Amino acid sequence: MAIGIFDSGIGGLTVFKSVAEHFPELDIYYLGDTARVPYGNKSKDTIIRYSIECSQFLINRFEIEALIIACNSASSYSVEILKNKLNIPVIGVIYPGSKHALEVSKNGKIGVIGTYATINSNSYKKTLIELSEREIQIFQKPCPLFVPIIEEGMIDSEITRLIVKEYLQEIIDEGIDTLILGCTHYPVLKNVIKEIYPDIQIVDSSQVIIDDIKKLDINFKENGIRHIFITDESSSFHKLKEILVGDVKTEKIELSELCKL
Amino acid sequence: MAIGIFDSGIGGLTVFKSVAEHFPELDIYYLGDTARVPYGNKSKDTIIRYSIECSQFLINRFEIEALIIACNSASSYSVEILKNKLNIPVIGVIYPGSKHALEVSKNGKIGVIGTYATINSNSYKKTLIELSEREIQIFQKPCPLFVPIIEEGMIDSEITRLIVKEYLQEIIDEGIDTLILGCTHYPVLKNVIKEIYPDIQIVDSSQVIIDDIKKLDINFKENGIRHIFITDESSSFHKLKEILVGDVKTEKIELSELCKL
Repeated sequence: MAIGIFDSGIGGLTVFKSVAEHFPELDIYYLGDTARVPYGNKSKDTIIRYSIECSQFLINRFEIEALIIACNSASSYSVEILKNKLNIPVIGVIYPGSKHALEVSKNGKIGVIGTYATINSNSYKKTLIELSEREIQIFQKPCPLFVPIIEEGMIDSEITRLIVKEYLQEIIDEGIDTLILGCTHYPVLKNVIKEIYPDIQIVDSSQVIIDDIKKLDINFKENGIRHIFITDESSSFHKLKEILVGDVKTEKIELSELCKL
Repeated sequence: MAIGIFDSGIGGLTVFKSVAEHFPELDIYYLGDTARVPYGNKSKDTIIRYSIECSQFLINRFEIEALIIACNSASSYSVEILKNKLNIPVIGVIYPGSKHALEVSKNGKIGVIGTYATINSNSYKKTLIELSEREIQIFQKPCPLFVPIIEEGMIDSEITRLIVKEYLQEIIDEGIDTLILGCTHYPVLKNVIKEIYPDIQIVDSSQVIIDDIKKLDINFKENGIRHIFITDESSSFHKLKEILVGDVKTEKIELSELCKL
Protein backbone atom coordinates (compact mmCIF):
# COMPACT_ATOMS: atom_id res chain seq x y z
CA MET A 1 0.00 0.00 0.00
CA ALA A 2 1.24 3.47 -0.90
CA ILE A 3 0.22 6.86 -2.19
CA GLY A 4 0.14 7.97 -5.81
CA ILE A 5 0.90 11.42 -7.17
CA PHE A 6 0.31 12.54 -10.73
CA ASP A 7 1.06 15.67 -12.71
CA SER A 8 1.09 16.68 -16.36
CA GLY A 9 4.87 16.53 -16.20
CA ILE A 10 7.62 18.20 -14.28
CA GLY A 11 6.01 20.75 -11.96
CA GLY A 12 4.52 18.13 -9.63
CA LEU A 13 8.03 17.15 -8.61
CA THR A 14 7.95 20.15 -6.22
CA VAL A 15 5.06 18.32 -4.48
CA PHE A 16 6.78 14.92 -4.73
CA LYS A 17 9.89 16.40 -3.08
CA SER A 18 7.96 18.00 -0.25
CA VAL A 19 5.89 14.84 0.45
CA ALA A 20 8.97 12.60 0.28
CA GLU A 21 10.83 14.81 2.77
CA HIS A 22 7.94 14.94 5.23
CA PHE A 23 7.10 11.22 5.10
CA PRO A 24 10.38 9.33 4.72
CA GLU A 25 8.87 5.87 5.22
CA LEU A 26 5.87 6.30 2.93
CA ASP A 27 5.86 4.47 -0.42
CA ILE A 28 5.31 7.04 -3.18
CA TYR A 29 4.54 6.41 -6.86
CA TYR A 30 4.64 9.41 -9.18
CA LEU A 31 3.35 9.63 -12.74
CA GLY A 32 4.37 12.60 -14.95
CA ASP A 33 2.44 12.61 -18.23
CA THR A 34 5.33 14.15 -20.16
CA ALA A 35 4.03 12.80 -23.51
CA ARG A 36 1.05 15.17 -23.30
CA VAL A 37 2.48 18.04 -21.20
CA PRO A 38 1.27 20.76 -20.68
CA TYR A 39 -2.35 20.28 -19.52
CA GLY A 40 -2.89 24.00 -18.87
CA ASN A 41 -3.60 24.83 -22.54
CA LYS A 42 -5.96 21.87 -23.09
CA SER A 43 -9.76 21.84 -22.78
CA LYS A 44 -11.72 20.83 -19.65
CA ASP A 45 -12.93 17.54 -21.19
CA THR A 46 -9.44 16.56 -22.27
CA ILE A 47 -7.93 17.43 -18.86
CA ILE A 48 -10.59 15.30 -17.11
CA ARG A 49 -9.94 12.35 -19.45
CA TYR A 50 -6.17 12.54 -18.90
CA SER A 51 -6.68 12.78 -15.10
CA ILE A 52 -8.83 9.64 -15.08
CA GLU A 53 -6.25 7.77 -17.17
CA CYS A 54 -3.36 8.80 -14.90
CA SER A 55 -5.14 7.81 -11.69
CA GLN A 56 -6.37 4.49 -13.10
CA PHE A 57 -2.78 3.63 -14.01
CA LEU A 58 -1.57 4.27 -10.44
CA ILE A 59 -4.50 2.39 -8.88
CA ASN A 60 -4.36 -0.63 -11.20
CA ARG A 61 -0.64 -1.01 -10.82
CA PHE A 62 0.03 -0.18 -7.14
CA GLU A 63 -3.25 -0.35 -5.23
CA ILE A 64 -2.52 3.11 -3.85
CA GLU A 65 -4.34 4.13 -0.64
CA ALA A 66 -4.64 7.81 -1.57
CA LEU A 67 -4.15 10.00 -4.62
CA ILE A 68 -2.58 13.46 -4.81
CA ILE A 69 -3.22 15.56 -7.89
CA ALA A 70 -0.01 17.62 -8.04
CA CYS A 71 -1.22 19.71 -10.97
CA ASN A 72 -3.41 22.77 -10.61
CA SER A 73 -5.03 22.42 -14.05
CA ALA A 74 -6.02 18.80 -13.30
CA SER A 75 -7.05 19.66 -9.72
CA SER A 76 -9.26 22.46 -11.03
CA TYR A 77 -11.46 20.14 -13.04
CA SER A 78 -10.97 16.62 -11.71
CA VAL A 79 -10.91 16.47 -7.89
CA GLU A 80 -14.66 15.97 -7.46
CA ILE A 81 -14.92 13.61 -10.45
CA LEU A 82 -12.08 11.43 -9.18
CA LYS A 83 -13.47 11.46 -5.62
CA ASN A 84 -16.73 10.05 -6.97
CA LYS A 85 -15.09 7.59 -9.32
CA LEU A 86 -12.35 6.16 -7.12
CA ASN A 87 -12.69 4.41 -3.76
CA ILE A 88 -9.74 6.21 -2.15
CA PRO A 89 -9.16 9.73 -0.77
CA VAL A 90 -8.20 12.30 -3.40
CA ILE A 91 -6.28 15.49 -2.51
CA GLY A 92 -5.86 18.30 -5.00
CA VAL A 93 -3.78 21.46 -4.61
CA ILE A 94 -6.66 23.96 -4.76
CA TYR A 95 -8.20 23.34 -1.33
CA PRO A 96 -4.98 23.40 0.76
CA GLY A 97 -3.72 26.50 -1.09
CA SER A 98 -6.99 28.36 -0.62
CA LYS A 99 -7.25 27.49 3.09
CA HIS A 100 -3.71 28.72 3.76
CA ALA A 101 -4.21 31.95 1.78
CA LEU A 102 -7.26 32.78 3.91
CA GLU A 103 -5.20 32.21 7.06
CA VAL A 104 -2.33 34.49 6.06
CA SER A 105 -4.17 37.32 4.28
CA LYS A 106 -4.79 40.32 6.52
CA ASN A 107 -6.72 42.60 4.18
CA GLY A 108 -8.71 39.84 2.43
CA LYS A 109 -7.38 40.81 -1.00
CA ILE A 110 -5.96 37.65 -2.55
CA GLY A 111 -4.25 37.21 -5.92
CA VAL A 112 -4.32 33.92 -7.83
CA ILE A 113 -1.97 33.12 -10.72
CA GLY A 114 -1.94 29.97 -12.87
CA THR A 115 -2.41 28.50 -16.35
CA TYR A 116 -5.37 29.42 -18.55
CA ALA A 117 -7.11 26.17 -17.56
CA THR A 118 -6.75 26.85 -13.83
CA ILE A 119 -7.78 30.51 -14.01
CA ASN A 120 -10.68 29.91 -16.42
CA SER A 121 -12.03 27.16 -14.16
CA ASN A 122 -12.39 29.72 -11.31
CA SER A 123 -11.56 26.83 -8.99
CA TYR A 124 -9.54 28.95 -6.54
CA LYS A 125 -12.13 31.73 -6.60
CA LYS A 126 -14.99 29.34 -5.82
CA THR A 127 -13.05 27.55 -3.09
CA LEU A 128 -11.84 30.78 -1.46
CA ILE A 129 -15.37 32.19 -1.36
CA GLU A 130 -16.76 28.90 -0.01
CA LEU A 131 -14.16 28.65 2.78
CA SER A 132 -14.04 32.30 3.80
CA GLU A 133 -15.96 33.56 6.79
CA ARG A 134 -15.45 37.23 5.94
CA GLU A 135 -15.78 39.33 2.82
CA ILE A 136 -12.82 38.86 0.50
CA GLN A 137 -11.72 40.13 -2.91
CA ILE A 138 -10.01 37.85 -5.43
CA PHE A 139 -7.86 39.00 -8.35
CA GLN A 140 -6.94 36.34 -10.89
CA LYS A 141 -4.34 36.42 -13.67
CA PRO A 142 -3.26 33.67 -16.08
CA CYS A 143 0.55 33.61 -16.55
CA PRO A 144 1.09 31.19 -19.46
CA LEU A 145 4.71 32.29 -20.07
CA PHE A 146 5.93 31.32 -16.58
CA VAL A 147 6.13 27.57 -17.32
CA PRO A 148 8.16 27.97 -20.55
CA ILE A 149 10.60 30.47 -18.99
CA ILE A 150 11.11 28.11 -16.02
CA GLU A 151 11.65 25.12 -18.31
CA GLU A 152 14.04 27.29 -20.35
CA GLY A 153 16.02 27.89 -17.14
CA MET A 154 15.54 31.68 -17.37
CA ILE A 155 15.01 32.02 -13.64
CA ASP A 156 17.05 35.09 -12.82
CA SER A 157 17.11 37.32 -15.92
CA GLU A 158 15.92 40.70 -17.15
CA ILE A 159 13.35 38.96 -19.38
CA THR A 160 11.94 37.01 -16.42
CA ARG A 161 11.67 40.16 -14.31
CA LEU A 162 9.87 41.97 -17.16
CA ILE A 163 7.43 39.09 -17.65
CA VAL A 164 6.78 38.86 -13.88
CA LYS A 165 5.96 42.58 -13.80
CA GLU A 166 3.90 42.38 -17.00
CA TYR A 167 1.66 39.75 -15.42
CA LEU A 168 1.64 40.72 -11.74
CA GLN A 169 1.70 44.54 -11.61
CA GLU A 170 -1.99 44.74 -12.48
CA ILE A 171 -3.13 42.58 -9.53
CA ILE A 172 -0.54 44.12 -7.18
CA ASP A 173 -2.07 47.53 -8.00
CA GLU A 174 -5.41 46.19 -6.73
CA GLY A 175 -3.81 46.00 -3.26
CA ILE A 176 -3.45 42.23 -2.75
CA ASP A 177 -1.39 41.19 0.29
CA THR A 178 -1.35 37.46 -0.56
CA LEU A 179 -0.56 35.63 -3.80
CA ILE A 180 -1.44 31.98 -4.48
CA LEU A 181 1.01 30.26 -6.83
CA GLY A 182 -1.64 28.24 -8.66
CA CYS A 183 0.76 26.13 -10.69
CA THR A 184 3.25 23.61 -9.33
CA HIS A 185 6.01 25.08 -11.53
CA TYR A 186 5.77 28.55 -10.03
CA PRO A 187 7.60 27.98 -6.71
CA VAL A 188 10.76 28.10 -8.85
CA LEU A 189 10.05 31.84 -9.39
CA LYS A 190 9.31 32.50 -5.71
CA ASN A 191 12.59 34.35 -5.07
CA VAL A 192 12.22 36.62 -8.11
CA ILE A 193 8.64 37.49 -7.15
CA LYS A 194 9.72 38.11 -3.53
CA GLU A 195 12.53 40.38 -4.74
CA ILE A 196 10.19 42.54 -6.88
CA TYR A 197 7.25 42.47 -4.45
CA PRO A 198 8.78 41.92 -0.96
CA ASP A 199 5.59 42.71 0.98
CA ILE A 200 3.41 40.03 -0.60
CA GLN A 201 2.73 36.75 1.22
CA ILE A 202 3.31 33.89 -1.22
CA VAL A 203 1.30 30.66 -0.90
CA ASP A 204 3.05 27.56 -2.26
CA SER A 205 0.81 24.46 -2.53
CA SER A 206 3.72 22.02 -2.39
CA GLN A 207 4.28 23.19 1.19
CA VAL A 208 0.72 23.55 2.46
CA ILE A 209 -0.55 20.20 1.13
CA ILE A 210 1.41 18.36 3.87
CA ASP A 211 -1.20 19.12 6.58
CA ASP A 212 -3.93 17.46 4.52
CA ILE A 213 -1.81 14.38 3.92
CA LYS A 214 -1.10 14.05 7.69
CA LYS A 215 -4.84 13.70 8.30
CA LEU A 216 -5.17 10.71 5.95
CA ASP A 217 -5.93 7.33 7.51
CA ILE A 218 -3.17 5.46 5.70
CA ASN A 219 -0.07 3.50 6.62
CA PHE A 220 2.83 5.95 6.72
CA LYS A 221 5.29 3.29 7.94
CA GLU A 222 6.14 1.53 4.71
CA ASN A 223 9.47 0.94 3.00
CA GLY A 224 10.12 4.44 1.70
CA ILE A 225 9.88 3.23 -1.91
CA ARG A 226 10.05 6.05 -4.49
CA HIS A 227 9.27 5.31 -8.10
CA ILE A 228 8.70 7.82 -10.87
CA PHE A 229 6.94 7.01 -14.16
CA ILE A 230 6.93 9.25 -17.21
CA THR A 231 5.16 8.84 -20.56
CA ASP A 232 8.01 10.45 -22.50
CA GLU A 233 11.74 10.83 -21.96
CA SER A 234 12.40 14.56 -21.96
CA SER A 235 15.68 16.24 -21.15
CA SER A 236 13.98 19.01 -19.18
CA PHE A 237 12.26 16.41 -16.98
CA HIS A 238 15.55 14.74 -16.14
CA LYS A 239 17.25 18.08 -15.52
CA LEU A 240 14.63 19.24 -12.99
CA LYS A 241 14.35 15.75 -11.49
CA GLU A 242 18.08 15.74 -10.75
CA ILE A 243 17.88 19.16 -9.11
CA LEU A 244 14.74 18.50 -7.08
CA VAL A 245 14.73 14.85 -6.08
CA GLY A 246 18.10 13.42 -7.13
CA ASP A 247 18.55 9.77 -7.96
CA VAL A 248 15.02 8.35 -7.86
CA LYS A 249 14.24 5.29 -10.01
CA THR A 250 12.49 6.51 -13.17
CA GLU A 251 10.75 4.38 -15.77
CA LYS A 252 9.17 5.29 -19.09
CA ILE A 253 5.79 3.77 -19.89
CA GLU A 254 4.00 3.85 -23.24
CA LEU A 255 1.25 6.42 -23.65
CA SER A 256 -0.93 3.65 -25.13
CA GLU A 257 -0.93 2.06 -21.64
CA LEU A 258 -2.88 5.10 -20.45
CA CYS A 259 -5.11 5.54 -23.52
CA LYS A 260 -6.31 1.95 -23.19
CA LEU A 261 -7.63 2.46 -19.66
CA MET B 1 -8.52 12.15 -53.76
CA ALA B 2 -6.89 15.00 -51.90
CA ILE B 3 -3.83 16.03 -49.92
CA GLY B 4 -3.38 15.76 -46.18
CA ILE B 5 -1.48 18.13 -43.92
CA PHE B 6 -0.67 17.50 -40.29
CA ASP B 7 0.95 19.52 -37.53
CA SER B 8 1.25 19.27 -33.76
CA GLY B 9 -1.30 22.05 -33.53
CA ILE B 10 -1.67 25.59 -34.67
CA GLY B 11 1.56 26.54 -36.45
CA GLY B 12 0.86 24.38 -39.50
CA LEU B 13 -2.06 26.64 -40.33
CA THR B 14 0.51 29.01 -41.90
CA VAL B 15 1.25 26.16 -44.35
CA PHE B 16 -2.46 25.28 -44.77
CA LYS B 17 -3.19 28.92 -45.63
CA SER B 18 -0.41 29.17 -48.17
CA VAL B 19 -1.31 25.84 -49.86
CA ALA B 20 -5.03 26.70 -49.91
CA GLU B 21 -4.31 30.07 -51.56
CA HIS B 22 -2.03 28.61 -54.21
CA PHE B 23 -4.26 25.64 -55.10
CA PRO B 24 -7.86 26.84 -54.83
CA GLU B 25 -9.40 23.68 -56.34
CA LEU B 26 -7.36 21.16 -54.36
CA ASP B 27 -9.12 19.19 -51.61
CA ILE B 28 -7.16 19.69 -48.36
CA TYR B 29 -7.57 17.81 -45.07
CA TYR B 30 -5.66 19.18 -42.07
CA LEU B 31 -5.06 17.49 -38.74
CA GLY B 32 -3.79 19.54 -35.76
CA ASP B 33 -2.88 17.30 -32.82
CA THR B 34 -3.86 19.93 -30.25
CA ALA B 35 -4.39 17.30 -27.51
CA ARG B 36 -0.65 16.61 -27.47
CA VAL B 37 0.79 19.96 -28.60
CA PRO B 38 3.68 20.85 -28.57
CA TYR B 39 5.82 18.15 -30.21
CA GLY B 40 9.03 20.22 -29.97
CA ASN B 41 9.69 19.30 -26.33
CA LYS B 42 8.98 15.57 -26.79
CA SER B 43 11.48 12.80 -27.53
CA LYS B 44 12.38 11.48 -30.99
CA ASP B 45 10.53 8.17 -30.48
CA THR B 46 7.39 9.90 -29.29
CA ILE B 47 7.44 12.40 -32.19
CA ILE B 48 7.80 9.53 -34.69
CA ARG B 49 4.91 7.60 -33.10
CA TYR B 50 2.64 10.67 -33.15
CA SER B 51 3.59 11.37 -36.81
CA ILE B 52 2.66 7.83 -37.85
CA GLU B 53 -0.66 8.08 -36.00
CA CYS B 54 -1.53 11.44 -37.61
CA SER B 55 -0.74 10.29 -41.14
CA GLN B 56 -2.56 6.97 -40.73
CA PHE B 57 -5.66 8.88 -39.68
CA LEU B 58 -5.58 11.06 -42.83
CA ILE B 59 -4.87 8.10 -45.12
CA ASN B 60 -7.49 5.76 -43.63
CA ARG B 61 -10.16 8.39 -43.69
CA PHE B 62 -9.55 10.32 -46.92
CA GLU B 63 -7.30 8.24 -49.19
CA ILE B 64 -5.03 11.27 -49.57
CA GLU B 65 -2.70 11.31 -52.60
CA ALA B 66 0.12 13.12 -50.83
CA LEU B 67 1.08 14.11 -47.30
CA ILE B 68 2.60 17.37 -46.08
CA ILE B 69 4.24 17.45 -42.66
CA ALA B 70 3.63 21.07 -41.64
CA CYS B 71 5.65 20.74 -38.45
CA ASN B 72 9.41 21.09 -38.28
CA SER B 73 9.81 18.83 -35.23
CA ALA B 74 7.85 16.03 -36.96
CA SER B 75 9.59 16.67 -40.32
CA SER B 76 12.98 16.44 -38.61
CA TYR B 77 12.46 12.87 -37.50
CA SER B 78 9.66 11.38 -39.58
CA VAL B 79 9.96 12.26 -43.30
CA GLU B 80 12.10 9.25 -44.25
CA ILE B 81 10.17 6.87 -41.99
CA LEU B 82 6.82 7.96 -43.42
CA LYS B 83 8.16 7.81 -47.00
CA ASN B 84 9.10 4.16 -46.41
CA LYS B 85 5.91 3.29 -44.57
CA LEU B 86 3.30 5.01 -46.75
CA ASN B 87 2.61 4.49 -50.45
CA ILE B 88 2.21 8.19 -51.23
CA PRO B 89 4.61 11.13 -51.61
CA VAL B 90 5.60 12.81 -48.34
CA ILE B 91 6.80 16.42 -48.20
CA GLY B 92 8.35 17.87 -45.06
CA VAL B 93 9.38 21.47 -44.43
CA ILE B 94 13.12 20.84 -43.98
CA TYR B 95 14.06 20.14 -47.60
CA PRO B 96 12.24 23.10 -49.25
CA GLY B 97 13.49 25.50 -46.57
CA SER B 98 17.09 24.33 -46.92
CA LYS B 99 17.04 24.51 -50.73
CA HIS B 100 15.70 28.05 -50.68
CA ALA B 101 18.20 29.20 -48.04
CA LEU B 102 21.09 27.98 -50.21
CA GLU B 103 19.66 29.92 -53.17
CA VAL B 104 19.35 33.25 -51.34
CA SER B 105 22.46 33.19 -49.11
CA LYS B 106 25.35 35.13 -50.59
CA ASN B 107 28.05 34.54 -47.98
CA GLY B 108 27.12 30.92 -47.20
CA LYS B 109 26.55 31.69 -43.51
CA ILE B 110 23.08 30.40 -42.66
CA GLY B 111 21.23 30.57 -39.33
CA VAL B 112 18.61 28.03 -38.30
CA ILE B 113 16.15 28.57 -35.47
CA GLY B 114 13.53 26.12 -34.18
CA THR B 115 12.34 24.00 -31.25
CA TYR B 116 14.72 21.83 -29.22
CA ALA B 117 13.57 18.76 -31.18
CA THR B 118 14.26 20.37 -34.55
CA ILE B 119 17.65 21.81 -33.59
CA ASN B 120 18.82 18.69 -31.72
CA SER B 121 17.92 16.53 -34.73
CA ASN B 122 20.40 18.55 -36.87
CA SER B 123 17.97 17.93 -39.73
CA TYR B 124 18.51 21.35 -41.34
CA LYS B 125 22.28 21.14 -40.87
CA LYS B 126 22.47 17.71 -42.54
CA THR B 127 20.17 18.72 -45.40
CA LEU B 128 21.97 22.02 -46.03
CA ILE B 129 25.36 20.28 -46.17
CA GLU B 130 23.99 17.54 -48.42
CA LEU B 131 22.41 19.99 -50.90
CA SER B 132 25.16 22.61 -50.97
CA GLU B 133 27.73 22.68 -53.73
CA ARG B 134 30.02 25.13 -51.95
CA GLU B 135 31.42 25.44 -48.47
CA ILE B 136 28.86 26.79 -46.04
CA GLN B 137 28.67 27.56 -42.33
CA ILE B 138 25.56 26.81 -40.27
CA PHE B 139 24.66 28.42 -36.94
CA GLN B 140 21.79 26.82 -35.05
CA LYS B 141 19.82 28.14 -32.08
CA PRO B 142 16.79 26.65 -30.32
CA CYS B 143 14.18 29.32 -29.47
CA PRO B 144 11.68 27.52 -27.21
CA LEU B 145 10.04 30.74 -25.96
CA PHE B 146 8.91 31.89 -29.43
CA VAL B 147 5.91 29.54 -29.60
CA PRO B 148 4.50 30.51 -26.19
CA ILE B 149 4.94 34.26 -26.80
CA ILE B 150 3.17 33.90 -30.18
CA GLU B 151 0.34 31.88 -28.65
CA GLU B 152 0.13 34.50 -25.88
CA GLY B 153 -0.36 37.13 -28.60
CA MET B 154 2.75 39.08 -27.51
CA ILE B 155 3.78 39.81 -31.08
CA ASP B 156 4.82 43.44 -30.88
CA SER B 157 6.07 44.11 -27.35
CA GLU B 158 9.22 45.03 -25.47
CA ILE B 159 9.37 41.49 -24.02
CA THR B 160 9.21 39.95 -27.51
CA ARG B 161 11.97 42.22 -28.80
CA LEU B 162 14.17 41.32 -25.80
CA ILE B 163 13.57 37.59 -26.31
CA VAL B 164 14.27 37.89 -30.07
CA LYS B 165 17.59 39.62 -29.32
CA GLU B 166 18.43 37.18 -26.51
CA TYR B 167 18.14 34.25 -28.93
CA LEU B 168 19.30 35.75 -32.23
CA GLN B 169 22.12 38.20 -31.42
CA GLU B 170 24.60 35.37 -30.92
CA ILE B 171 24.07 33.89 -34.41
CA ILE B 172 23.79 37.34 -36.01
CA ASP B 173 27.23 38.12 -34.56
CA GLU B 174 28.56 35.12 -36.47
CA GLY B 175 27.80 37.03 -39.66
CA ILE B 176 24.81 35.08 -41.06
CA ASP B 177 23.03 36.70 -44.02
CA THR B 178 20.14 34.19 -44.12
CA LEU B 179 17.87 32.87 -41.36
CA ILE B 180 15.67 29.78 -41.70
CA LEU B 181 12.50 29.96 -39.60
CA GLY B 182 12.55 26.29 -38.64
CA CYS B 183 9.15 26.27 -36.93
CA THR B 184 5.80 26.90 -38.58
CA HIS B 185 4.82 29.32 -35.80
CA TYR B 186 7.74 31.66 -36.42
CA PRO B 187 6.48 33.48 -39.57
CA VAL B 188 4.24 35.39 -37.14
CA LEU B 189 7.42 37.04 -35.76
CA LYS B 190 8.83 37.80 -39.24
CA ASN B 191 8.11 41.54 -39.03
CA VAL B 192 9.69 41.95 -35.58
CA ILE B 193 12.81 40.05 -36.70
CA LYS B 194 12.99 42.14 -39.91
CA GLU B 195 12.69 45.34 -37.88
CA ILE B 196 15.57 44.41 -35.54
CA TYR B 197 17.75 42.78 -38.22
CA PRO B 198 16.71 44.42 -41.54
CA ASP B 199 19.64 43.00 -43.55
CA ILE B 200 18.90 39.34 -42.92
CA GLN B 201 17.13 37.23 -45.57
CA ILE B 202 14.35 35.30 -43.86
CA VAL B 203 13.30 31.87 -45.18
CA ASP B 204 9.69 30.93 -44.43
CA SER B 205 8.83 27.27 -45.20
CA SER B 206 5.13 27.94 -45.61
CA GLN B 207 6.05 29.96 -48.71
CA VAL B 208 8.81 27.85 -50.23
CA ILE B 209 6.96 24.52 -49.90
CA ILE B 210 4.65 25.51 -52.77
CA ASP B 211 7.23 24.70 -55.48
CA ASP B 212 7.56 21.14 -54.20
CA ILE B 213 3.80 20.66 -54.17
CA LYS B 214 3.53 21.90 -57.78
CA LYS B 215 5.79 19.06 -58.89
CA LEU B 216 3.50 16.39 -57.41
CA ASP B 217 1.67 14.11 -59.83
CA ILE B 218 -1.74 14.57 -58.22
CA ASN B 219 -5.13 15.89 -59.27
CA PHE B 220 -5.20 19.60 -58.42
CA LYS B 221 -8.65 20.08 -59.98
CA GLU B 222 -10.90 18.83 -57.22
CA ASN B 223 -13.72 20.53 -55.36
CA GLY B 224 -11.69 22.86 -53.18
CA ILE B 225 -12.86 21.05 -50.03
CA ARG B 226 -11.16 22.30 -46.82
CA HIS B 227 -11.62 20.38 -43.62
CA ILE B 228 -9.70 20.81 -40.37
CA PHE B 229 -9.53 18.19 -37.63
CA ILE B 230 -8.21 18.81 -34.14
CA THR B 231 -7.76 16.42 -31.22
CA ASP B 232 -8.65 19.06 -28.61
CA GLU B 233 -10.74 22.22 -28.62
CA SER B 234 -8.41 25.02 -27.61
CA SER B 235 -9.22 28.70 -27.62
CA SER B 236 -5.80 29.65 -29.01
CA PHE B 237 -6.36 27.30 -31.99
CA HIS B 238 -9.67 28.92 -32.84
CA LYS B 239 -8.21 32.41 -32.43
CA LEU B 240 -5.33 31.80 -34.86
CA LYS B 241 -7.58 29.79 -37.20
CA GLU B 242 -9.94 32.76 -37.49
CA ILE B 243 -7.07 35.13 -38.25
CA LEU B 244 -5.27 32.88 -40.72
CA VAL B 245 -7.86 30.86 -42.59
CA GLY B 246 -11.25 32.22 -41.56
CA ASP B 247 -14.37 30.11 -41.61
CA VAL B 248 -13.11 26.60 -42.45
CA LYS B 249 -15.13 23.60 -41.23
CA THR B 250 -13.44 22.28 -38.07
CA GLU B 251 -14.19 19.03 -36.30
CA LYS B 252 -12.86 17.59 -33.05
CA ILE B 253 -11.87 13.94 -33.01
CA GLU B 254 -11.02 11.81 -29.98
CA LEU B 255 -7.34 11.24 -29.27
CA SER B 256 -8.16 7.55 -28.77
CA GLU B 257 -8.94 7.42 -32.52
CA LEU B 258 -5.25 8.14 -33.12
CA CYS B 259 -3.83 6.00 -30.33
CA LYS B 260 -5.69 2.96 -31.65
CA LEU B 261 -4.03 3.17 -35.09
